[in-house]
Amino acid sequence: MNSMKSIKLSMLAGLAVTCLLLSVLSQRNTVDAQEHGAKSRPAAVFEGQDTMLRPEGYREWVFVGSSTGLSYLPNAPADGESKREDIKHVYIDPFAYREFSRTGKFPEGTVMILEVARAATKNEPGLQGSFAGEYIALEASVKDSKRFPGGWAYFSFTERGGKSVAKAKPFPEGACLSCHQKKAATDHVFTQFYPVLNAARPK
Amino acid sequence: MNSMKSIKLSMLAGLAVTCLLLSVLSQRNTVDAQEHGAKSRPAAVFEGQDTMLRPEGYREWVFVGSSTGLSYLPNAPADGESKREDIKHVYIDPFAYREFSRTGKFPEGTVMILEVARAATKNEPGLQGSFAGEYIALEASVKDSKRFPGGWAYFSFTERGGKSVAKAKPFPEGACLSCHQKKAATDHVFTQFYPVLNAARPK
Repeated sequence: MNSMKSIKLSMLAGLAVTCLLLSVLSQRNTVDAQEHGAKSRPAAVFEGQDTMLRPEGYREWVFVGSSTGLSYLPNAPADGESKREDIKHVYIDPFAYREFSRTGKFPEGTVMILEVARAATKNEPGLQGSFAGEYIALEASVKDSKRFPGGWAYFSFTERGGKSVAKAKPFPEGACLSCHQKKAATDHVFTQFYPVLNAARPK
Repeated sequence: MNSMKSIKLSMLAGLAVTCLLLSVLSQRNTVDAQEHGAKSRPAAVFEGQDTMLRPEGYREWVFVGSSTGLSYLPNAPADGESKREDIKHVYIDPFAYREFSRTGKFPEGTVMILEVARAATKNEPGLQGSFAGEYIALEASVKDSKRFPGGWAYFSFTERGGKSVAKAKPFPEGACLSCHQKKAATDHVFTQFYPVLNAARPK
């Protein structure tokens, strides 16, 4: 009887260790490449101070919204001019999503992904509309006040010409941060365009 | 020494039990309402033979693709006629996604969600394009050969007029199944429109 009890207790301890481990892993959202083991990759991995490795697994993160041809341009193309109608899919890492759902705030370590696809159509009888086809670009934003003076930094993992790159330095501050600061509804994030985050926000 | 060993072994056993439990839970993808405990809800919950409860938590599932105004219509609206340009977001439950990524096939219990949003624009200086705004409809498809003679069934959780409903009977077979059977690229699923599934499929 006693040894059964001790085994049950130890199994409980085993469970507790598993849970603790999972919760610790989920809270370490950004990490340096050299400390990063192969198994459970955190949302953002850095080499040195600010070189971000190409994100992985983000298509299993939480999708927050899609858009067509959405951008802020100082000079809007005139009517009749051809506009680029790329489709954008935006994701947030699951830990940040849970925190945002609980508090309405983006925690340190938040990673958001912008994946761009070409709008595609198919010539088929009776088929209307367009859909997200071939992927053409991948960008990321990361909230990490210890690494980035502006709090957030922005990265592109696609070269001019469309080639994917394995790592990226942040854009200079003027390129993205200032517009995100001025126009985004919630802490540099364009929640005004993300119905999933608006629905998840605590009321 | 010996008791340390036995405690370590039991902790390992505890871990093994946790993993087994998690894997069993994740494999029971559809379930009857009366057996369904509150904690970890499976992808589809049924009342009786074929009344599906409104899905929950699907916005944390795997997003597979977006589209604008996409549909098969026998009578296409003539040019110039106003077309409905609703935006569609499609999700798959995580277990089915992992299985599809491994085998290229949709397992029994696969649940897919179609959430429809109104295409929205904002009148703001310099802002181009449109985005997924207010949600207006929710539909689901479920692969469950034991419940449904056609293998798959289709459900709407939105009444005419836009009101959400808490449970739904499947559409009659002619309504969705026949088109999904004829036009969808992979086992009743329109993978031709889902770039995430095409990227995940084993090569």
